Amino acid sequence: MKSTTMYLTFTTKRKHAFINITQDVRKVVEESKISEGICLVNAMHITASVFINDDERGLHEDFEKWLEDLAPHSPTEHYKHNDTGEDNADAHLKRQIMGREVIVAITNAKLDFGPWEQIFYGEFDGQRNKRVLVKVIGE
Amino acid sequence: MKSTTMYLTFTTKRKHAFINITQDVRKVVEESKISEGICLVNAMHITASVFINDDERGLHEDFEKWLEDLAPHSPTEHYKHNDTGEDNADAHLKRQIMGREVIVAITNAKLDFGPWEQIFYGEFDGQRNKRVLVKVIGE
Amino acid sequence: MKSTTMYLTFTTKRKHAFINITQDVRKVVEESKISEGICLVNAMHITASVFINDDERGLHEDFEKWLEDLAPHSPTEHYKHNDTGEDNADAHLKRQIMGREVIVAITNAKLDFGPWEQIFYGEFDGQRNKRVLVKVIGE
Repeated sequence: MKSTTMYLTFTTKRKHAFINITQDVRKVVEESKISEGICLVNAMHITASVFINDDERGLHEDFEKWLEDLAPHSPTEHYKHNDTGEDNADAHLKRQIMGREVIVAITNAKLDFGPWEQIFYGEFDGQRNKRVLVKVIGE
Repeated sequence: MKSTTMYLTFTTKRKHAFINITQDVRKVVEESKISEGICLVNAMHITASVFINDDERGLHEDFEKWLEDLAPHSPTEHYKHNDTGEDNADAHLKRQIMGREVIVAITNAKLDFGPWEQIFYGEFDGQRNKRVLVKVIGE
Repeated sequence: MKSTTMYLTFTTKRKHAFINITQDVRKVVEESKISEGICLVNAMHITASVFINDDERGLHEDFEKWLEDLAPHSPTEHYKHNDTGEDNADAHLKRQIMGREVIVAITNAKLDFGPWEQIFYGEFDGQRNKRVLVKVIGE
């Protein structure tokens, strides 16, 4: 069994962002020289997500609005977590909806994807360095 | 390390459906001859889910109603994504709640399941060919 | 490829609980002698979750309240599933939000974690024996 581990770092300009990281992951898979196996991609911070969905700007606006409805940022004093001095309780909740990680099959040395699958980093409390782990295992 | 990859295709009669695919996955695991490892099962389309829960018709009706409350289909013009000509923005959202994939342990050549665990394909925008990937890796 | 499989059992005093199981998982990883690979941790029951987030009591109260808003326990007759004699339909829904499983990279014989990542068992219908599976594969 072979394995390759890489860390990607993101510093978003805004608090919230969706970034297409498919090419970054593809590069790690190529460098791994693994032709059959799996690829784990996970946020290493607990106010961010990695998920697979459509690379369509309108949909991302829909996600943003929907997540704000389901887990609103304000009023910040609504959340016990924010009594610690943080104001990011909502980001911890949003990350549960969108998920921490994805696992993608590697077949014939490629991400084994359906026609529209793209991997995104979802940031809900950005403007600082945050990491994503990519690990490929297989042969 | 050995691996086996299979693709299942589903064409649902209705837009929404929950289909128990446990037997299909079990068959792939048996054919893989892998006794210790893991099995990845993921929707290859971004308006569908794979998840593990109970095979109980009433619960599936509850899921359906609950998802419609959390991410309603109508009014379709409520969603920016639908400006592209699609009407399935809600399906992209529902899929995030229910998840894209599951990973099941393979122990002693079997799906290592608790008493009630069953694998479902969740369709939120059906009536066309859509695929599920099953990949088993291990030894 | 090596593998190790362990089962953890939890019996919570209350119906709902969040239990930090990071040390339990770490112990399994150490015993596995695997230095590069992945670790799967999943609830074996369908009214419980395994997830990664912050070990902060206030946040756990926020999760509890938020999940009760999104998938309320009462009125229990609101759910078809409860016509079977159960009263735990809401627990099946809550588990979908929080997730069934996590996959953690093993690098240099350790859980390859960001600074705040901790693994939790989330119980939504407790007061009875329930199991979590931990499987490590790699080399």
